[in-house]
Amino acid sequence: MDKIMLAHGGGGQKTTDLIRNKIQKYFNDPELSQMDDAAVLDKLVFTTDSFVVEPLFFPGGDIGELAVSGTVNDIAVMGARPLYLSVGFIIEEGFEINNFETILESMKRAAETSPVRIVTGDTKVVDRGKCDGIYINTSGIGEIAFTPPPGVERIQPGDMVLINGPIGLHAISVLTARKEFGLDTEVLSDVAPLWSLIEQLNDFAVKFMRDPTRGGIAQVLNEIAGDRDFGVEIWEDSLPITQEVVGVCEILGFDILHLANEGKVIVVAAEKDAEKILEIMENDPLGKGAKIIGKVTEKNKGMVTLKTTALSERIVLPPTGELIPRIC
Amino acid sequence: MDKIMLAHGGGGQKTTDLIRNKIQKYFNDPELSQMDDAAVLDKLVFTTDSFVVEPLFFPGGDIGELAVSGTVNDIAVMGARPLYLSVGFIIEEGFEINNFETILESMKRAAETSPVRIVTGDTKVVDRGKCDGIYINTSGIGEIAFTPPPGVERIQPGDMVLINGPIGLHAISVLTARKEFGLDTEVLSDVAPLWSLIEQLNDFAVKFMRDPTRGGIAQVLNEIAGDRDFGVEIWEDSLPITQEVVGVCEILGFDILHLANEGKVIVVAAEKDAEKILEIMENDPLGKGAKIIGKVTEKNKGMVTLKTTALSERIVLPPTGELIPRIC
Repeated sequence: MDKIMLAHGGGGQKTTDLIRNKIQKYFNDPELSQMDDAAVLDKLVFTTDSFVVEPLFFPGGDIGELAVSGTVNDIAVMGARPLYLSVGFIIEEGFEINNFETILESMKRAAETSPVRIVTGDTKVVDRGKCDGIYINTSGIGEIAFTPPPGVERIQPGDMVLINGPIGLHAISVLTARKEFGLDTEVLSDVAPLWSLIEQLNDFAVKFMRDPTRGGIAQVLNEIAGDRDFGVEIWEDSLPITQEVVGVCEILGFDILHLANEGKVIVVAAEKDAEKILEIMENDPLGKGAKIIGKVTEKNKGMVTLKTTALSERIVLPPTGELIPRIC
Repeated sequence: MDKIMLAHGGGGQKTTDLIRNKIQKYFNDPELSQMDDAAVLDKLVFTTDSFVVEPLFFPGGDIGELAVSGTVNDIAVMGARPLYLSVGFIIEEGFEINNFETILESMKRAAETSPVRIVTGDTKVVDRGKCDGIYINTSGIGEIAFTPPPGVERIQPGDMVLINGPIGLHAISVLTARKEFGLDTEVLSDVAPLWSLIEQLNDFAVKFMRDPTRGGIAQVLNEIAGDRDFGVEIWEDSLPITQEVVGVCEILGFDILHLANEGKVIVVAAEKDAEKILEIMENDPLGKGAKIIGKVTEKNKGMVTLKTTALSERIVLPPTGELIPRIC
């Protein structure tokens, strides 16, 4: 590993390697070593994310909505109420102010529906050709609202795994917007801030939540199961999928489990509450198509398996390369 | 204004225009409208900064040290103790891992001396040619330590203006590292985290602090005086300057008051405490060459003036264009 590769930014195994072997060699704060998407500091949650999506505008959203939703969701999945956002713009010389305003408007709207306050910011301009229009960093502060807060150490065999709707929409939306593959599907990105949905789950035995962005649900489920004393089993016929996404995956050879989502949350909950959580999701606009997709098992410790038929299953690995770069 | 210009990132009038006319049109949180470098949220301070300096390595520092120091200083000048940093990397495909490690090491060292904990992060990789090696965003959380906290509304005529050492070092260091002008001076950047110095001023009547980065001390002093019921007068023969920096300014026609600093703080303090603050600065490694450089006046309301001789003075304006882009 002597040069940065696109796969280092893919959110899969290469990203994990870069963080563990290089970044954590220098930054070894115990909070950082947790490798959560946010740090928990007493009652506060603190998180950061940079957005470099290409193209900036895609069916169903744009980089502005993405930048607010991504950070709001990283806070929300910690069981924390999003309070404050910072915004850092890196803009290319010559970028159209009109496009900038469209992005600002999307951010404003997403922040209002979260709701979260944008309280501090920074703007840098780089020469033409030194960025791809605009990059946005958002960092966020939230306060823990769930008691007890969710955490991977609370997961036990018998817990159920849920997701709030169809997977892969964001990745396929961005991909089709690039027009590289001559796809004429119109898949809308699922990008959305999720706190208004997640907030309603506070009364139930939620063990763990995570938004399956880069690396998809395969990455999140492997982070859950990895090195632990249980396995995670998911069921193919329960996965919420759409025909358009499956169609694109078949044509291009993508694994739908690796595709990024930007308005989805994986919830691990006690079996007794799983049906109630499903009902809440189904009754919320952000949970249309929600499903119980699997369970935590005693067997296959440390592994994620996909049950394809009653008799057959395969191991689900995290992505090792970068399927679709610049997805968020 | 229909396209982004480099001057929009210069920290001067054009940046102010972009923020006031465009960004604040959409983001209108009362905290953001203060246009401080950080938001004050109850007892917390929250700030963000993106670093796009070119070149990444310059005499006296690198982008890593800059990224930690810049955010630590934005917190410190609010009279707040820096606690936590987030780090967001945007890295270009093909970037040398060795260089990345050098940057990480600088960040680690700067964080340790601040001291501040790096608790959360994010890494994105963009295609070759879509960034200039590496861009770094740091966001930070601090807690108010000064009682009462400094604030521009506390400034009164008669207060004194101090700075902790020679000005313009960072800008000239970066400029000479570019080798564009055939300069063979070796000016070291002043980049440094300043909390260890600022912390010692807590017992004194500090009215206001600000780090004069982009736009230089001309920008900061104009932000202090602008639209207010007092003026700020500074004295040419009291300004801490070095011969090398003055020499470069003469050759290239730069106004030294517009040059960026990364290890300097402008302190406005009650006259009774100014000499004591000066003494503390002079006894600290971060305050070598500190000076009382001016005072807050009843006359020339809303303006900054530079007294060049006993009988002569000129108005100091904030920079309107972008003297030296990509300085931080």
